[in-house]
Amino acid sequence: MSKPLVLNPDRLFSSDPAQRAVARELYALVKDFPILSPHGHTDPQWFADNQPFGNATELLLAPDHYIFRMLYSQGIALDDVGVASRAGPAKADPREAWRIFASNQHLFRGTPTAIWTSHVFGHVMGFEVALDASTADLYFDRIGELLASDAYRPRALFERFNIELLATTESPTDTLEHHAKIQASGWKGRVVTAYRPDPVIDAEHEDFHDKLKLFAELTGEDVHSWKGYLNAHRQRRDFFKSMGATSTDHGHPTAQTANLSNSDAKELFHRVLKKNVSAEDAELFRAQMLTEMARMSLDDGLTMQIHPGSYRNHNRSIFETFGRDKGADIPLATGYVHELKPLLDAFGNEKDLTVIVFTLDETVYARELAPLAGHYPILKLGPSWWFHDSPEGMTRFREQVTETAGFYNTVGFNDDTRAFLSIPARHDVARRIDANFLGRLVVEHRLSAEDAAETIKDLTYTLPKAAYKL
Amino acid sequence: MSKPLVLNPDRLFSSDPAQRAVARELYALVKDFPILSPHGHTDPQWFADNQPFGNATELLLAPDHYIFRMLYSQGIALDDVGVASRAGPAKADPREAWRIFASNQHLFRGTPTAIWTSHVFGHVMGFEVALDASTADLYFDRIGELLASDAYRPRALFERFNIELLATTESPTDTLEHHAKIQASGWKGRVVTAYRPDPVIDAEHEDFHDKLKLFAELTGEDVHSWKGYLNAHRQRRDFFKSMGATSTDHGHPTAQTANLSNSDAKELFHRVLKKNVSAEDAELFRAQMLTEMARMSLDDGLTMQIHPGSYRNHNRSIFETFGRDKGADIPLATGYVHELKPLLDAFGNEKDLTVIVFTLDETVYARELAPLAGHYPILKLGPSWWFHDSPEGMTRFREQVTETAGFYNTVGFNDDTRAFLSIPARHDVARRIDANFLGRLVVEHRLSAEDAAETIKDLTYTLPKAAYKL
Amino acid sequence: MSKPLVLNPDRLFSSDPAQRAVARELYALVKDFPILSPHGHTDPQWFADNQPFGNATELLLAPDHYIFRMLYSQGIALDDVGVASRAGPAKADPREAWRIFASNQHLFRGTPTAIWTSHVFGHVMGFEVALDASTADLYFDRIGELLASDAYRPRALFERFNIELLATTESPTDTLEHHAKIQASGWKGRVVTAYRPDPVIDAEHEDFHDKLKLFAELTGEDVHSWKGYLNAHRQRRDFFKSMGATSTDHGHPTAQTANLSNSDAKELFHRVLKKNVSAEDAELFRAQMLTEMARMSLDDGLTMQIHPGSYRNHNRSIFETFGRDKGADIPLATGYVHELKPLLDAFGNEKDLTVIVFTLDETVYARELAPLAGHYPILKLGPSWWFHDSPEGMTRFREQVTETAGFYNTVGFNDDTRAFLSIPARHDVARRIDANFLGRLVVEHRLSAEDAAETIKDLTYTLPKAAYKL
Repeated sequence: MSKPLVLNPDRLFSSDPAQRAVARELYALVKDFPILSPHGHTDPQWFADNQPFGNATELLLAPDHYIFRMLYSQGIALDDVGVASRAGPAKADPREAWRIFASNQHLFRGTPTAIWTSHVFGHVMGFEVALDASTADLYFDRIGELLASDAYRPRALFERFNIELLATTESPTDTLEHHAKIQASGWKGRVVTAYRPDPVIDAEHEDFHDKLKLFAELTGEDVHSWKGYLNAHRQRRDFFKSMGATSTDHGHPTAQTANLSNSDAKELFHRVLKKNVSAEDAELFRAQMLTEMARMSLDDGLTMQIHPGSYRNHNRSIFETFGRDKGADIPLATGYVHELKPLLDAFGNEKDLTVIVFTLDETVYARELAPLAGHYPILKLGPSWWFHDSPEGMTRFREQVTETAGFYNTVGFNDDTRAFLSIPARHDVARRIDANFLGRLVVEHRLSAEDAAETIKDLTYTLPKAAYKL
Repeated sequence: MSKPLVLNPDRLFSSDPAQRAVARELYALVKDFPILSPHGHTDPQWFADNQPFGNATELLLAPDHYIFRMLYSQGIALDDVGVASRAGPAKADPREAWRIFASNQHLFRGTPTAIWTSHVFGHVMGFEVALDASTADLYFDRIGELLASDAYRPRALFERFNIELLATTESPTDTLEHHAKIQASGWKGRVVTAYRPDPVIDAEHEDFHDKLKLFAELTGEDVHSWKGYLNAHRQRRDFFKSMGATSTDHGHPTAQTANLSNSDAKELFHRVLKKNVSAEDAELFRAQMLTEMARMSLDDGLTMQIHPGSYRNHNRSIFETFGRDKGADIPLATGYVHELKPLLDAFGNEKDLTVIVFTLDETVYARELAPLAGHYPILKLGPSWWFHDSPEGMTRFREQVTETAGFYNTVGFNDDTRAFLSIPARHDVARRIDANFLGRLVVEHRLSAEDAAETIKDLTYTLPKAAYKL
Repeated sequence: MSKPLVLNPDRLFSSDPAQRAVARELYALVKDFPILSPHGHTDPQWFADNQPFGNATELLLAPDHYIFRMLYSQGIALDDVGVASRAGPAKADPREAWRIFASNQHLFRGTPTAIWTSHVFGHVMGFEVALDASTADLYFDRIGELLASDAYRPRALFERFNIELLATTESPTDTLEHHAKIQASGWKGRVVTAYRPDPVIDAEHEDFHDKLKLFAELTGEDVHSWKGYLNAHRQRRDFFKSMGATSTDHGHPTAQTANLSNSDAKELFHRVLKKNVSAEDAELFRAQMLTEMARMSLDDGLTMQIHPGSYRNHNRSIFETFGRDKGADIPLATGYVHELKPLLDAFGNEKDLTVIVFTLDETVYARELAPLAGHYPILKLGPSWWFHDSPEGMTRFREQVTETAGFYNTVGFNDDTRAFLSIPARHDVARRIDANFLGRLVVEHRLSAEDAAETIKDLTYTLPKAAYKL
């Protein structure tokens, strides 16, 4: 017998009746606000072509690293759940893959994945029974039908989700053809890009030299000269801006910045161009480029995002067989105080620059990031990220950040996801957790109900709009 | 006037009525489950000889480093509370020592020690008044009477505690004679050993060379050759396995692993055998041996436990006078991402290997351990350990681990104790805290009551049974 | 329309009715206890001269780095809110500065500053409307009137605040003339000093050589010889003690200690005296001096406080323009296990020495500080400090420290403030949070109500009195 799928209207609120009552009221204020998604990884082609999504496995299971890493951790092979490898698409039958996922729902108890999938199944798909082994086929079939219908095409869902703006992330060597097609289409959905130059900045990236070549071709600059290389960035930033970009994004292993003299930077650049760059030079170059990017942001006004601290592709064998983004990225202890200083010494007191910092290392929230953001005019704190995009993670973020940085040095929520259907779920979790946190402040008489009401609106809408210049 | 000793049936549950009600129900499901204790430090001789325990001080005070370190921190001399030194037994009168402990109960307010001792005094000993200066003698006398009775002999208590399996920990040079005697005795209690090779692996251990000699004698192997040394391990692992062992345990200063070529490992081994081994070589050898142990586990199926991060014998003067395990072991910041990589590169994707990782550094729960265990098939997370074997510690563990690793990459509770009488108390705390944590998920509508019920049974019984192959 | 200023009597207590009820009772026990403030930074001249304070901006805004750093983080210039620079007093009109502060109250939502200022405005000043743009002038005028009245002079407030003892902090080269004037005045208020020798110990301090010169003049010692330098410390410590000091205080970048041989220490000292001291030598000298200070404390009985881990003056441009203490000090990851060992090896087991350790790095509470303080007789833990002097910070401190170190290895509350009017507010927060934490232990049946009552009295009064020998 199948179990009901219940989405309790009070989910994620404290069970304390007083706090719950306030949380409920605050949540009600912002529940139906449009979604601003200024940082994410959806595929712009979906909205350009507006073709129907495939089946349940293809849409919801195989591309979701939160899901397949958990299955993999319990000995389930990635091929068996439809994850493509370097050799090509998985051989698994999509229905069989879906059954494996369905039979292993217990692994997700207490995880945000369980919350997101329930929301997708219940609110987006209309299921009233829970997914498990007994309902696997029912789900697979029904999802297939829904996805084939016009109401579940990308643009229809975008509109139904009440998304005011969705940012994707592209490399400087991307032509942005899908964004152009969206713009040309007359469709009103706002899908913009963001400038993520890691592949042409990170000399340890496996495609660095290939990407540089492309970078030269696209810009006509001599990207092997320091000046030409910087000009190429400027040119592409301008192009990205013309395609709606309001921000750049930088996913470095550390938060290290540097501010070398022009001649030292130039020499470093030339060392970095050689094969077998040293780890130190690669790191220093990434560090220097954060400062260069900040300098360019002062000119073109793009908000800058720094996402450091992930050890990418930790599992060697999975990387060799399956490639990147296969659930094997592991956070590292990440410092910011010494690391950001060169950039802050150069531009920390500027009024027209916004640098949003993220972390995977929660130990820096109260120790480093809140004190830095509670002082430097250019710094704002991004929301709790990735492994911490979760009820407990968001709550710890507010508990550890607010007392020193307040609410107004934070920038609202980012969903940061490739999983398009989960976007409303993720924003809903953030709104609920903020309502619950503010609710606690109210019932502990640390904040008036009136101020809490204004704050949750700002967290949901005003702050992201301002920080990302939307 | 003495104070009553109260063991409230709702202790450790949230005071929120809704959460408490669910916690109570979940706890009731597992309250009477048998105890699986797959990792501990009781003395097998107790169960081999089944002689009565001594007096209250000898059994409950003098050997319990949680207790005497707290007394010592307040200026009370270790001799005065019966702690033996290198020079021999303490001169303190046991009754006088007990009185000191009794008069200093306020020091333990809010500590797990207070919870454990209350449980022992109330549930195991039947006291109805609290221990304090006024009841010190009453306690001392009554405990003496109880311990002299048959009902308080080791085997009787083992049975009364409903222990299904108890693992002790022995060095490779241990003859396991007590385990043999237990097996030969016809008594049904399952007391097994675990293979803890630190003394023959850690070249910085004061007894390293003596233990190696013994290792050679017991195995007949040339333990001064790399091949013979590894063979000696294999032999002893087999012997331990024949005496019931299902696991090995490794208490290293760090989580560093290494995977050297055979010739490099051999050279390293020969450097390590010399007097005045360098700190770097000693560390590298420990690192290499973790990988060797993992390799042997692939052959013999023993589950592997890694317990890193304690700075042992931090207090020089106490170490010189009193020796090891005197409450002066202090946790250190401990990394796992870089450290475990060599072992994980070698064996991280195996299906027939289980490596259980522990930590004394809570900052890695969400940042490193949950992401690692939520991806690698061989990794599971041990429970919150030692200083964190406590209500707040266990709660933080679940709060920080569950969202990324789920419940099913954890392995249930370990009591890890020498304090035999406290074993039921410790498991009771773990069951209560899990019930309370799951209760919160239920009342916040993050988990159904039905799934919570299944989960608490798995945490209490199924998961330890599977992880330790009991 | 202005909003009411409400100071709810239950503020900071849990909204759970059971916990709140116990917290209320515990708080009532200590609410009116006198204030012991053994560590702070008020100006002794206030109490020596007893002149009226200036206007609202001068008293409450311009000197409070918690407030102006938050305003600065949102792009408000320090000059505009009355902060003096190296060039002299700010040019801002105090009333205009106050209006800026008043209009930006939303920045402080959820921060301890909001709690402190509400308490000052409501309880100390008698306002019944909240500060905002509409009431800025009302506030500025009324505060001006109050400060001009005798009831708001420093000594009158000191008495009204029920301060039993207030410690200020002075450098060895301070003449303590204000303390002498207070003593000579016949006024009964106890204002004592504390010995803070950083400027003559930290060779990286910009005034090191000037201060050494003064140190020599004041003591008549040859402070450029190691022996004379140590003697000068002894002399000034004696003098400070004669002016009521019961403690020393050390604000080093790290917790590093050292215990060099006398000849090595002497050589180091001579290197440190030279211009262009190396960072390593400066660090080693600070480390060595902690041990020297401990040695002197064994002789003169002064309690020692170590406040490590702040990266001072992180914002280069602000430091150059405005100088020290401008809200740009950022905490750093701080280790204690290796760092304190040299000092602990030398004096860790002494019975007549108290060393109180603080941290800005909460990750060490459970991992390092609680285990150290729960073992070494000389160590006690200072309260949650600076950025963590807040409801969440204090709660995390108790949650992470108590299970291993208990309550009796902590020393009650320090307000650590220059903001004299906020002292009652800060102690009130500490009492409420302790009541709330103890209340939770009571309703979770982890502590009896009777023991909780005794504990909160000890935390509020007995423990600071003992630790600081007041």
